[in-house]
Amino acid sequence: MSTTAGNTKAYADSSGSFKRRGPRFTDRIVANPSGEGEWPAEPGRYRLVVSLACPWAHRSVIVRRLMGLEDAISLAITDPLQDDRSWRFSLDEGGVDPVLGYTHLEQAYLARDPEDGTENGVSVPAIVDVASGALVTNDYPQITVDLGQEWRAHQRAGAPDLYPEHLRAEIDEVNEGVFHDVNNGVYKAGFATKQTRYEEAYAALFARLDALEERLESRRYLVGDHITEADVRLFTTLARFDAVYQGHFKCNRQKLAEFGALWAYARDLYQTPGFGDTVDLDHIKRHYYQVQTTINPTQIVPLGPLTAWDTPHHREELGGSPFGPEGTAPAPLEHPLRPLGPIDM
Amino acid sequence: MSTTAGNTKAYADSSGSFKRRGPRFTDRIVANPSGEGEWPAEPGRYRLVVSLACPWAHRSVIVRRLMGLEDAISLAITDPLQDDRSWRFSLDEGGVDPVLGYTHLEQAYLARDPEDGTENGVSVPAIVDVASGALVTNDYPQITVDLGQEWRAHQRAGAPDLYPEHLRAEIDEVNEGVFHDVNNGVYKAGFATKQTRYEEAYAALFARLDALEERLESRRYLVGDHITEADVRLFTTLARFDAVYQGHFKCNRQKLAEFGALWAYARDLYQTPGFGDTVDLDHIKRHYYQVQTTINPTQIVPLGPLTAWDTPHHREELGGSPFGPEGTAPAPLEHPLRPLGPIDM
Repeated sequence: MSTTAGNTKAYADSSGSFKRRGPRFTDRIVANPSGEGEWPAEPGRYRLVVSLACPWAHRSVIVRRLMGLEDAISLAITDPLQDDRSWRFSLDEGGVDPVLGYTHLEQAYLARDPEDGTENGVSVPAIVDVASGALVTNDYPQITVDLGQEWRAHQRAGAPDLYPEHLRAEIDEVNEGVFHDVNNGVYKAGFATKQTRYEEAYAALFARLDALEERLESRRYLVGDHITEADVRLFTTLARFDAVYQGHFKCNRQKLAEFGALWAYARDLYQTPGFGDTVDLDHIKRHYYQVQTTINPTQIVPLGPLTAWDTPHHREELGGSPFGPEGTAPAPLEHPLRPLGPIDM
Repeated sequence: MSTTAGNTKAYADSSGSFKRRGPRFTDRIVANPSGEGEWPAEPGRYRLVVSLACPWAHRSVIVRRLMGLEDAISLAITDPLQDDRSWRFSLDEGGVDPVLGYTHLEQAYLARDPEDGTENGVSVPAIVDVASGALVTNDYPQITVDLGQEWRAHQRAGAPDLYPEHLRAEIDEVNEGVFHDVNNGVYKAGFATKQTRYEEAYAALFARLDALEERLESRRYLVGDHITEADVRLFTTLARFDAVYQGHFKCNRQKLAEFGALWAYARDLYQTPGFGDTVDLDHIKRHYYQVQTTINPTQIVPLGPLTAWDTPHHREELGGSPFGPEGTAPAPLEHPLRPLGPIDM
């Protein structure tokens, strides 16, 4: 396993803080395109490129599956270890994505904009127009909303509504706090190069987790009585918490497994089709521990923790149901998203 | 906080394994010296130099206190952060140990052997002959045994016997396994630079902890019915486990606080005078996280974990007593071993 210059860059700025760059390409794929920057929701036209390691990309994998869009939008899974050209298709036969014909995701970014396509980095999730090979969008918060709202004509029967009109204000509010303090908060803690910056991120993270713990003591899901976008977004961070953020990012006031309601809530989601079956802890751990050498120069990947994701959660007692009165769970996966290989050394 | 060349050395050899160097100076301090390499147990003659961060040195701090030898052997506490000349007295007025007159412990090693004194490094605990300023011994496993056995004439009334004759074979056997798999095992895991070496150390560590967990389910202490050397040696590693080894050294199958008997046992000892009152988590965390930059290049010191060392342990129900029928606990410390300052950044 080799590291490359591209993987050893500093993540924090001169103030010691980590700043996340926003999405660069914000075109949307919608049911009824009405102008520039809008593409049609057309089955077979796009390829969704993700890393199973990445919490931002993981959201789109979950939503694609909850919506039953597997046949409408194909999925490309990158190697969890980037090289100096970033995300790559080295897990595929010949190191080439069989649909796009690319070795690296950056090729789609450059097909979109040959001059500045990779100026803000190459990120996942990325939706690529298969015919042109060009990136359509890497706008991760919009991607999941649009997979839910704009692809209705192509979704499975029983697909839930993850962003119902009457709950949007509340979902947005919850998402805002979770984004800053939790989803991105763990990165702010982990990539800080100054003690004070780390301590600020740590304080905000655990204050928010404490508030979520209290919220979840009396309700099964974050907003309303069913799973929403808010749950999807919190889940992908919680799924990585004990395996990575607690140790590697020093978010160690306590483990997720040492919370009460929050840990039961995470298990409840994990045991729901679409959630746990899209968690790939091998990809997750190898990515963080082997790529981020400014934090883990030895690139040793911890064997732990043992985590009992499959234990009973008893959250049914709080009422609510995962997918609402008319929604159903997606069918179980016939096989894992990719084979679980041993850690490469 | 600056790092120096001396702190960034590699800890592992070319096979990726960490090898601990043995003590270099193995003279003994005994009740009745009878030849070369034996020094008299004489109150006021020696100074014990420790780092409160170091688990090997911590043993001697505990035993000195259990034996009531505070007035017989004075204590020097080093800065938890070494510089390129290793352990130093920078916490003292003017950066000089008031008894030895040294800025660095290496001066005592060189007073003992001007040519090769520091050949095997400068380690704590170190016992120094005050009059000559020369190191007597840095033989940590022998130091604690001799403080218990050879200083009897100067110990407090009620000092326990930590190494009773009839239990020595069993104590030695327990110590042997604990040393290789636990005390030194955490270092083997943490300093490994090859995945396989790490995994071997991790497996041995948790296999041993599982065996200890089982042993401690039915008995209050490791050997016999009272505290012995075996408990002292295991304790100093357990005291650092969740704060350092679990994250920094990747010993993360589970936290100590996620064990049952082992965690209750550790709390029982912690709540016994001489144990918890000699644990300095600030020195411990700063040392490991700020000195070992090959593992933690950012030198950020985690704020967590919150650990409930003071919660009831209910270990009295197993029978046994800390110090035996004739032993008593040492008096509470009037003040901490040193003031707990904020983390220096």
